[in-house]
Amino acid sequence: MNAVIDPKKELEDLQEDLREVQELLRRHQLVEGLVERQEMPRHELVEALVHRQNGAELRAKLDRMHPADVAYILESLPLEERLIVWDLVKAERDGEILLEVSDAVRESLIRSMDPEELVAATEQLEADEIADLAPDLPEDVMADVFRSLPVEEREQLRAAMSYPEDAVGALMDFDVVSVREDVTLEVVTRYLRRFDELPGHTDQVFVVDREEHLTGVLPLSLLIVSDLEASVAAVMKTDMVTLYPDDKAQQAAQAFERYDLVSAAVVDEQGKLVGRVTIDTVVDYIRDKSEGEALAKAGLREEEDIFASVWDSVKNRWAWLAVNLVTAFIASRVIGAFEGSIERLVALAALMPIVAGIGGNSGNQTITMIVRAAALGQIQPDHAKKLYRKERGVALLNGLIWGGILGLVAWYLYSSIPLGMVMTLAMVLNLLLAATMGVLIPTTMVKLGRDPAVGSSVMITACTDSGGFFIFLGLATLFLL
Amino acid sequence: MNAVIDPKKELEDLQEDLREVQELLRRHQLVEGLVERQEMPRHELVEALVHRQNGAELRAKLDRMHPADVAYILESLPLEERLIVWDLVKAERDGEILLEVSDAVRESLIRSMDPEELVAATEQLEADEIADLAPDLPEDVMADVFRSLPVEEREQLRAAMSYPEDAVGALMDFDVVSVREDVTLEVVTRYLRRFDELPGHTDQVFVVDREEHLTGVLPLSLLIVSDLEASVAAVMKTDMVTLYPDDKAQQAAQAFERYDLVSAAVVDEQGKLVGRVTIDTVVDYIRDKSEGEALAKAGLREEEDIFASVWDSVKNRWAWLAVNLVTAFIASRVIGAFEGSIERLVALAALMPIVAGIGGNSGNQTITMIVRAAALGQIQPDHAKKLYRKERGVALLNGLIWGGILGLVAWYLYSSIPLGMVMTLAMVLNLLLAATMGVLIPTTMVKLGRDPAVGSSVMITACTDSGGFFIFLGLATLFLL
Repeated sequence: MNAVIDPKKELEDLQEDLREVQELLRRHQLVEGLVERQEMPRHELVEALVHRQNGAELRAKLDRMHPADVAYILESLPLEERLIVWDLVKAERDGEILLEVSDAVRESLIRSMDPEELVAATEQLEADEIADLAPDLPEDVMADVFRSLPVEEREQLRAAMSYPEDAVGALMDFDVVSVREDVTLEVVTRYLRRFDELPGHTDQVFVVDREEHLTGVLPLSLLIVSDLEASVAAVMKTDMVTLYPDDKAQQAAQAFERYDLVSAAVVDEQGKLVGRVTIDTVVDYIRDKSEGEALAKAGLREEEDIFASVWDSVKNRWAWLAVNLVTAFIASRVIGAFEGSIERLVALAALMPIVAGIGGNSGNQTITMIVRAAALGQIQPDHAKKLYRKERGVALLNGLIWGGILGLVAWYLYSSIPLGMVMTLAMVLNLLLAATMGVLIPTTMVKLGRDPAVGSSVMITACTDSGGFFIFLGLATLFLL
Repeated sequence: MNAVIDPKKELEDLQEDLREVQELLRRHQLVEGLVERQEMPRHELVEALVHRQNGAELRAKLDRMHPADVAYILESLPLEERLIVWDLVKAERDGEILLEVSDAVRESLIRSMDPEELVAATEQLEADEIADLAPDLPEDVMADVFRSLPVEEREQLRAAMSYPEDAVGALMDFDVVSVREDVTLEVVTRYLRRFDELPGHTDQVFVVDREEHLTGVLPLSLLIVSDLEASVAAVMKTDMVTLYPDDKAQQAAQAFERYDLVSAAVVDEQGKLVGRVTIDTVVDYIRDKSEGEALAKAGLREEEDIFASVWDSVKNRWAWLAVNLVTAFIASRVIGAFEGSIERLVALAALMPIVAGIGGNSGNQTITMIVRAAALGQIQPDHAKKLYRKERGVALLNGLIWGGILGLVAWYLYSSIPLGMVMTLAMVLNLLLAATMGVLIPTTMVKLGRDPAVGSSVMITACTDSGGFFIFLGLATLFLL
């Protein structure tokens, strides 16, 4: 049973392969140094090396691999080695592998290919797949691809490319199998037999009328168990999920999760069947979106290849650092306004970052909880009051507990009861500020129709830093000096 | 075609329903105030109210809804209203709805039910579903459920409960349809016809020998297009993904994503078929995991119901605040060690948080990128050197740019060139520290077999805060005083 695939072993095998590839490449590069002077074009050089050494074996290994596994190998290799492996991949597999790799790696691979190679790789794909690659392809390549497509596919490609990235239209494919409702299941079965194999993720065939309006779906699991004499109309289901191309992809994903779908029909405004969405695309979308959010929270503008150049990385990260620098500068000026107080009581300088820091942590907890609830659609406008009450209660309790402890510590360290009391009061007030802003910021962003996951965290930290310094130093100036 | 479901409209409808429910409840509660004195048990009261008013309509509405939609409504309601709606849900649907709601809400619902209700709700479920609920159910309820099950299901439940939450065994269900390889497709088709409907997500039937060893899979999409005279052995696929119950759930999820699966067989060590995993369970797992990570990053120990009590929220959040308090206290003591310097040059107090803050932001960017690459399995042990080189390069460049700007600002604000130079140097050094720790912390956690997503962020912030204060104040003490 060595044909059985076990993903755990698979992963280990892949890593083994990767080491083998790297070993082969190291040997190649040793030779490469010797050959370089002859100024052979790079890909010919690779050819030569691969033939001369046991690289043919490596090529054979890559040929046997699933495109997703080749993509994984490419993503795990530093740029130089990645491009050598890429040269070894059979040209007719280039397209499907480009679809599998991550955006940053895809860019690096496309940059290494000449226009003819790109056109050849793209032409083998289906219209919806070409649309996925399109944003990364040079314009002249896309123009060539367009010209080479049959009319129907050209129309499909045009349609697929017309939708924004976060619309159902961008997730849609055109592999729909449809039947009429007035035929018998016997006829349907005979019709399906004409396929060599049904398109992937076909768990149902779509039922349409003469004008291509969707009237129902016929799940294969029903078709198989039903009497072949029955008509499609008698067996088909009519309470199905349908999507419109303009729907938000996020809503389609929620429908797939909520109703455990494998595929869903996409219809236009007249109810005509135009395509379908399948669970594999939805899973990729969910994954991309949650990764995008995690990256955005740390201010990485786009997915960054771990082997990206220093300069690309700096460009990817600078905007976030600039924003944080501005908020840090504002906080610094708040402190600057109280320099006189600090000069007279230097303990304030040591204690103030604690007040600001805990406020930031606590505010981020509130925001994280609310952002999650908002993403699940659980926040109603009339809940705001309840949320404020709850979060302020939590803040008050936390402020009294932790502020109390810190007050005692400050008293002990600096032998000053008033300083301890100011510390406690400042903690309570800054946590209340954090709670208020922690509810206000994300709920306002939801009301304005913006995604609360992006930017909320910087804003709350800005509030609790500047606010924390102001509250603590202000109280100290009032009561201690 | 009003039977067609459009998720966008669906969501709006649900929110409409929710408002209706709340309106009905408000009216109920007005009456409830009047009836309370009679000390009717709560659920009888609800009964009475629902019958008296047009609440029967509400009950009918809930009956028509998909369990996932009822779950959504329950999650979106504050505790009191949630329990009233819960009382209105038909008892025989309790089980399937409990499966759909989030953990925190499930707990609140279970707490409101008496043991008999719980046993009745649980008994209707399948073994793998009962296992999912088990951790939330009281022991005596589980004992009763166990006793009431037929022998085979009892064994399945015992098996399902024996696996840790993050193992394939916990994702597995027992709805496998299997056939022998020596029969014809004609026989298979006749066998399948005996089902009323195939189990959900059956995209393939499993092929086993006399001892239940898995020998292949027969996709329905192949069965449908193949000649019925052919034998199963001739048509079945043998290069399928199989899982072991002890495999990590994460690896199963990767296999589903990578190979676009709808279902996969689970076999024991002898290769005997014991169950299957389906894409809907995997999608739920992926969602739970990514949400759990987002919550963990903000130090929320578990998913928190937005309507949880203040006390539950405090308990959920205190550990994280305590950890952060300790790191903030350490940073504060670093500052305390330099109080003499700050007293002599108070500008240091205003500038020091900038150095620490930008270091933290930059370090978190590095960690986020590496954690993501590690989750995709792209980090090889021999890459560490390359990563250090790249991240230190980025840090150096960022340090020179942003540190340079801040140096100029410090010079302008405090008319001191040496202060500006110390500021720039401190920024460069703290960013280099952030880059080094930003690679070291997650790669070390990976080496130790721990999840780098949890805890890395606190550790890096602790390093860059204490480190930033030490570097800046130390340099200032050396060169300025």
